[in-house]
Amino acid sequence: MITDLWLVGIGSGSPSHVTGEGMQALREASVILVPEKGEGKDDLAGLRRTLLDAAGSNAQVVPFEYPVRDPALPYQERVIAWHDEIARRWQAALQGVEVSGPVALLVWGDPSLYDSTMRIATRLTPAPKLRVIPGITAIQALTAAHCIPLNTVNGPVTITTGRRLRDYGWPPEAETLVVMLDGLSSFQHLSEEAHIWWGAFLGMPEQILIDGPVQEVAQQIVETRARARAEHGWIMDTYLMRRKEAS
Amino acid sequence: MITDLWLVGIGSGSPSHVTGEGMQALREASVILVPEKGEGKDDLAGLRRTLLDAAGSNAQVVPFEYPVRDPALPYQERVIAWHDEIARRWQAALQGVEVSGPVALLVWGDPSLYDSTMRIATRLTPAPKLRVIPGITAIQALTAAHCIPLNTVNGPVTITTGRRLRDYGWPPEAETLVVMLDGLSSFQHLSEEAHIWWGAFLGMPEQILIDGPVQEVAQQIVETRARARAEHGWIMDTYLMRRKEAS
Repeated sequence: MITDLWLVGIGSGSPSHVTGEGMQALREASVILVPEKGEGKDDLAGLRRTLLDAAGSNAQVVPFEYPVRDPALPYQERVIAWHDEIARRWQAALQGVEVSGPVALLVWGDPSLYDSTMRIATRLTPAPKLRVIPGITAIQALTAAHCIPLNTVNGPVTITTGRRLRDYGWPPEAETLVVMLDGLSSFQHLSEEAHIWWGAFLGMPEQILIDGPVQEVAQQIVETRARARAEHGWIMDTYLMRRKEAS
Repeated sequence: MITDLWLVGIGSGSPSHVTGEGMQALREASVILVPEKGEGKDDLAGLRRTLLDAAGSNAQVVPFEYPVRDPALPYQERVIAWHDEIARRWQAALQGVEVSGPVALLVWGDPSLYDSTMRIATRLTPAPKLRVIPGITAIQALTAAHCIPLNTVNGPVTITTGRRLRDYGWPPEAETLVVMLDGLSSFQHLSEEAHIWWGAFLGMPEQILIDGPVQEVAQQIVETRARARAEHGWIMDTYLMRRKEAS
């Protein structure tokens, strides 16, 4: 049974992204639940080990397997069924494990931003006491790497997904648009005049940055992304676009 | 002369928000430029001292005074003139100071989000080599404290300012709306049915949290905010609202 569940944001690729609060939580956790496979990202497992060592964590590491999403279901239902199954697997993984204190999960980026761990946690019965520890997001790693502000002076910012950008296009009111979870480089189909700041493997030694007018650099980004993905076996990228008239 | 300028995001109220990268930067900086007054927030000066001590920083702390914004100018011009003047004061403050390495500025939250330090830095001549170190934002401290996701599943998020909310109302496309820099509790004039998650002094021992349907809790937030502000002499607050139909 999980009485205390801590979701620890570990930032976006660099162990140095972790906050003091995050490090302390890793030290104080009794058990750390880690996905066994299905991520397809061995670099993440390495980062996790580095972090636990750096924190001096003595927590018991308990693995669980990620289920496969059912492609036959519509998007929202598929996500819900997947979350239900992950919650069951957390509980199954802890069967027979002596949990003497908080159970922690390491969350890429920040647990509040396009991450499902918090929603999965609400499925646990009895409901554990939840604690969320913020972490540096890919958006922050992107703006820091490019040395750009996220917003213009008094300007709004819209954060959206690749799926929404493909389905609905550029949101008419958006001046600055951040796109996450976009495996299809959906910026390449835009007709808006905008500047794009793109980054892959943000915070990591392999980090790649490209920026320029979106119509001019779209092809370069698509090709760079394909090459880097083939080389590493996986890729994580995100980007920010700003309409041309904005400053 | 500043050859290397580091903007270090120090998070939103708690020294434990600072990342490993941030702590290391404080240790490696040669000079730290700090605003002497004008913030009206003595608690921030205390936080800064705590951080430098915790980091084991031996940097020389060089103070500068914030200029006053000219209320006679229109908003955008006033901001530009203010940034110009701050850049001049940084350079004046460093006259006669031996700068043997990077100059650092401690930035509340994250240097990319509604902060002018990066824009001020672009005014320096010759242009220094800029480095941005991300920090936990008030938005992240807010969602973590309330244990809520920032976005719904595949949903967009709009970040805006109190000024824009007053001038333009709820952005029609926005489902989740984060409002920053709102000293006037502009949510109290909304007619939209939405849930609000509000927080003040986020990350600090004095942290206050209120949430509920915005029409039901608006008055309670306004009164709580006024009381807390009178008690502490200052206040920092932010909030997130989600339209009722969203989940």
